[in-house]
Amino acid sequence: MKQRYYFDWAATALPAGPRLSPPVPFGNPSSPHTEGRLARKALEDARSRCAAVLGVGAETIYFTSGGTEANMIALHSLLMREGPPGTLLYSAMEHPSVRENALALKKLGMPVRQIQAEKDGRISGEKFSAALDRAERPVLAAVMAVNNETGSINGIPALAALSRKFFGPPVRFHCDIVQAIGRTPVALKEWGVDSASLSAHKLGGPRGTGILYLRQPAGVLGCGGGQERGIRPGTENVEGAAALAEILEIRAKNETAAAEYAAAVSRFGFLIRSLRATGRCALVPEDRQDEDKRFSPYILQIALKGIPGQAAVRALDNEGFAVSTGSACSSHKEGRPVLDAMGVDRETALYGIRISQGWTTTEDDIEALLIAVKKILGRL
Amino acid sequence: MKQRYYFDWAATALPAGPRLSPPVPFGNPSSPHTEGRLARKALEDARSRCAAVLGVGAETIYFTSGGTEANMIALHSLLMREGPPGTLLYSAMEHPSVRENALALKKLGMPVRQIQAEKDGRISGEKFSAALDRAERPVLAAVMAVNNETGSINGIPALAALSRKFFGPPVRFHCDIVQAIGRTPVALKEWGVDSASLSAHKLGGPRGTGILYLRQPAGVLGCGGGQERGIRPGTENVEGAAALAEILEIRAKNETAAAEYAAAVSRFGFLIRSLRATGRCALVPEDRQDEDKRFSPYILQIALKGIPGQAAVRALDNEGFAVSTGSACSSHKEGRPVLDAMGVDRETALYGIRISQGWTTTEDDIEALLIAVKKILGRL
Repeated sequence: MKQRYYFDWAATALPAGPRLSPPVPFGNPSSPHTEGRLARKALEDARSRCAAVLGVGAETIYFTSGGTEANMIALHSLLMREGPPGTLLYSAMEHPSVRENALALKKLGMPVRQIQAEKDGRISGEKFSAALDRAERPVLAAVMAVNNETGSINGIPALAALSRKFFGPPVRFHCDIVQAIGRTPVALKEWGVDSASLSAHKLGGPRGTGILYLRQPAGVLGCGGGQERGIRPGTENVEGAAALAEILEIRAKNETAAAEYAAAVSRFGFLIRSLRATGRCALVPEDRQDEDKRFSPYILQIALKGIPGQAAVRALDNEGFAVSTGSACSSHKEGRPVLDAMGVDRETALYGIRISQGWTTTEDDIEALLIAVKKILGRL
Repeated sequence: MKQRYYFDWAATALPAGPRLSPPVPFGNPSSPHTEGRLARKALEDARSRCAAVLGVGAETIYFTSGGTEANMIALHSLLMREGPPGTLLYSAMEHPSVRENALALKKLGMPVRQIQAEKDGRISGEKFSAALDRAERPVLAAVMAVNNETGSINGIPALAALSRKFFGPPVRFHCDIVQAIGRTPVALKEWGVDSASLSAHKLGGPRGTGILYLRQPAGVLGCGGGQERGIRPGTENVEGAAALAEILEIRAKNETAAAEYAAAVSRFGFLIRSLRATGRCALVPEDRQDEDKRFSPYILQIALKGIPGQAAVRALDNEGFAVSTGSACSSHKEGRPVLDAMGVDRETALYGIRISQGWTTTEDDIEALLIAVKKILGRL
């Protein structure tokens, strides 16, 4: 097979290895016998290790089947809230697992309101406050840390602080950190978020594993055997939890992430400059700079002039390069709601492709990608 | 470490092996590039293999994170039903992932009604019809195939046929087959159930993987990126799906299951006779026979006279035997609702322990267990 270059790390990262963790005990962690207690210990060890990397208490970590389920639990918990219904707010840039669940809750009669984005895809304090001001009894606001299609980074500490300022009970602040953890700085406690979600496979860990961080326990819709202190029922995936602990320790320690971040900035800085120099490539948003602190250096949205996104993805795939249009999770849907929310014009939105890199991406990979892009542009 | 004897297969089966399946492609199955398409192919292959073993169409198989989530999706789908609310019926013997979710839906205002059990823990056609007759607009009835605490087997084909007889739109019939698949005969299509749930780790497969069978697509509450045709969002766990296909092929082919069933009947027949002969051991229900077709030969509920269940579990654990009281999933809760539903007296319920065997259990294991039980009884 022809050499492959993987530039779709935002969809799923290259796996860290065939077996991340030593084998874990097979017992059911809820069983009271020796086999069960050994499994319980392995699970709680994994929880403590994840908590240590994230800088939070172990009692705030709930293992889930992934980022989507973590987002779902956080949002569906509103169904079990006592008292008159409150408004759920979510940013227009959210991943489908937030946006689509917000719309499902709206169908059930829950007041729901979108928080508008700025042209750079970020959620400003002004737009955030405006949405909260207009909402009747706001109860939860969901704003992601890093957008999965454009890489735009939100100022979470400032937004979380705003959510606490609204009089009455403070508005719970939920933050999807799936594209942030292990890539851009994350500090859940200092940020002051009430809940957060992350996924193992975006870090090179196994699929089917994630974390819901909950500063305080919340009511949940989904019930069962009371596992994960009632927040996430179902026999615990001990292997997944142990592997997630391992990959978080490898990937998401602040020092590692900081060093890799600098290298990623440099690689994508060069890529952005070179793409701009072709004169045939639009950046999304237009004013994204080579080394722009508003954006994650792991995700880049561009449009090749004259080549619709799906055609560009196919052409690059034929050259050996894996890139995507929007998020993989959106590939089942029509349209580009995230780009629309940024006010990107219809043509650019239709032509947009996402290039996402990772910790093993090299400068040579970037050079090869540039050659392929130029080749495709040259064909027109 | 002292030799261990594992008699808690109903909580989780002994793993079939460290690596069930060959490595699967790492790509995100929703990605349109080569890596994504390879992963998609592996996922769809796994789906077809599971469907073949279950004797149903591949389009009816939805991969989930386990049995609990499969039950949750089936029940929560009622929230998205159009029109006036209909009644959810569930048997009094259901696993917490059905019972507790039914109670959560009741809190949200959904009409919910329990179907009473007979003294042997089975759901009779009479009790089933009576519950449906009394329910206003019954829409879904959940009755498990094999109970996880007593092994009682329900006559699913007859109950499913009854659910179709109610005039107006037929009542959807949901069947938890977690303790049936690979152990007792299962024939989803012939049974005529509308949905079913199963879990990989109860078969010796990995944790974090299961299946929701849906004869027809249903509305769902949880949304996201549209994976699993919108029924179960979140990046697909391809490894889990492939391993589940493998373990279903090993374990749940009817021929394998039939041969193992006969051996299991023989082993537990001997165990039951020997326990009864001690004169100090109550069977649950009292009239369970040595080789009783009303019960799965993989699960046995007994009470050791004079020894509360938790003490018996501890004492047996010290002797090297893993047994449980109720389900592992109930270990976080008080009481024994399943035994209560059978009209078991309070003392027996308090003293009940579950012994569950598997395909690698030997006659020698049973002999060793009997010696340990007699030793513990002798200490009183």
